Amino acid sequence: MSPAAARAAFRAGLRVPTSGYSAGWTQANLIALPRDYAYDFLLFAQRNPKSCPVLDVTEPGETSASIFAGDLRTDLPAYRVYRDGELVEEVGDVTGLWRDDLVSFLVGCSFTFEAALLEAGVPVRHIETGGNVPMYRTNRDCRPAGRMSGPLVVSMRPVPASMVATAVRITSRYPAVHGAPVHIGEPADLGIGDIDSPDFGEPVEIRPGEIPVFWACGVTPQAAVMQSRPPFAIGHAPGHMAITDARDSEFLVP
Amino acid sequence: MSPAAARAAFRAGLRVPTSGYSAGWTQANLIALPRDYAYDFLLFAQRNPKSCPVLDVTEPGETSASIFAGDLRTDLPAYRVYRDGELVEEVGDVTGLWRDDLVSFLVGCSFTFEAALLEAGVPVRHIETGGNVPMYRTNRDCRPAGRMSGPLVVSMRPVPASMVATAVRITSRYPAVHGAPVHIGEPADLGIGDIDSPDFGEPVEIRPGEIPVFWACGVTPQAAVMQSRPPFAIGHAPGHMAITDARDSEFLVP
Repeated sequence: MSPAAARAAFRAGLRVPTSGYSAGWTQANLIALPRDYAYDFLLFAQRNPKSCPVLDVTEPGETSASIFAGDLRTDLPAYRVYRDGELVEEVGDVTGLWRDDLVSFLVGCSFTFEAALLEAGVPVRHIETGGNVPMYRTNRDCRPAGRMSGPLVVSMRPVPASMVATAVRITSRYPAVHGAPVHIGEPADLGIGDIDSPDFGEPVEIRPGEIPVFWACGVTPQAAVMQSRPPFAIGHAPGHMAITDARDSEFLVP
Repeated sequence: MSPAAARAAFRAGLRVPTSGYSAGWTQANLIALPRDYAYDFLLFAQRNPKSCPVLDVTEPGETSASIFAGDLRTDLPAYRVYRDGELVEEVGDVTGLWRDDLVSFLVGCSFTFEAALLEAGVPVRHIETGGNVPMYRTNRDCRPAGRMSGPLVVSMRPVPASMVATAVRITSRYPAVHGAPVHIGEPADLGIGDIDSPDFGEPVEIRPGEIPVFWACGVTPQAAVMQSRPPFAIGHAPGHMAITDARDSEFLVP
């Protein structure tokens, strides 16, 4: 499905996680903040590039972006709205909440490299089951910037032990969409007490012989919003991403 | 020579291009701007990552950075000072000019990958001759951001035709220090009329069988300052870089 077709479906009301959608096209996390917070957030992202690789930034009030020809207010499957850092609602359309001073940041998403993982023979459990990827708040603090601070959030994919190195090698080539894992095995080291109770998304089965592999996650900006409490913010609902018009291959290195 | 030793030598008055210094340690371009311009510049950098890969950003007024334990006002070999976009002086110390509202940006420098080029057998002419790398303003506009706009600046190294692919392959692995070349051969396409008259640095000989290879250059922020005319700015003198405490290998991908 083309990005434009996927966006039209979401605009029409389809509300599903986007993992597996529009293979080959880059998916992005959304965080929209008042202009007053834009420098603090952009600096936060610069200081935490593994979790917050910025792909695009709009002018204040703009509703599309250079890599996203759709409407940022309607063309994601679902949004989360924050006031003073509190999640106040999850909705399918934020047109009525939009403000002229909102700067939208599109942040790389690890769904982007899942097609490459599958192609290399690495199974992706939440695609197999048609669910959402599990995501966890960790005990690792991001490096703060101005008024923005918060914990690192990670996504987890169980990978057969024999394929962990392949998964590292493949994803390393996509630094703009979180790149190599930040942690392999030992969830307790990250402060994850119960792997079956993710903070965002849905749990997945870890089968015998599989290692939980953790990648930095673009929900990190929303965790920073929750901790830093800017007066207003809009994010995507975790797993319900912006499907951009940028090709995955544009972010492939070297 | 360790970064600290090199910085001490520059602080003591040594005024030379830094190409070839402290091999294995990352070199960086400096641009210090008033806080009022910091968001515009950080966004300019995000929109022009090939020429402006930001490695570190200070708090306003800070004189060191997380990857630079020295004093940003004294520990580079030479500085250029701009008022309203005009270059007003080139000096070895900017302590007397420092302001509490200056935000310093350290931007990746292609000198960083020269050790890797040499190791791969790719000759680097300006290191052979002990001179400065030639740099050119091009006819390519950067993507503007707020009040910041300007042309792409490139550095040039002549590479034997048989080694151009190797040079691309090696430097591609260092996207944080400009990465792969932006242009190979055909200087006129970039608007470079006379390859022997660089806008910054010194000319180098292009021998028979060599192709001029162009990399995006961290002098681009200074070209943007000249065009955009912020009230005040301090940059490094082209080729006279900040030698950081970060290892080249930290910026190696994948």
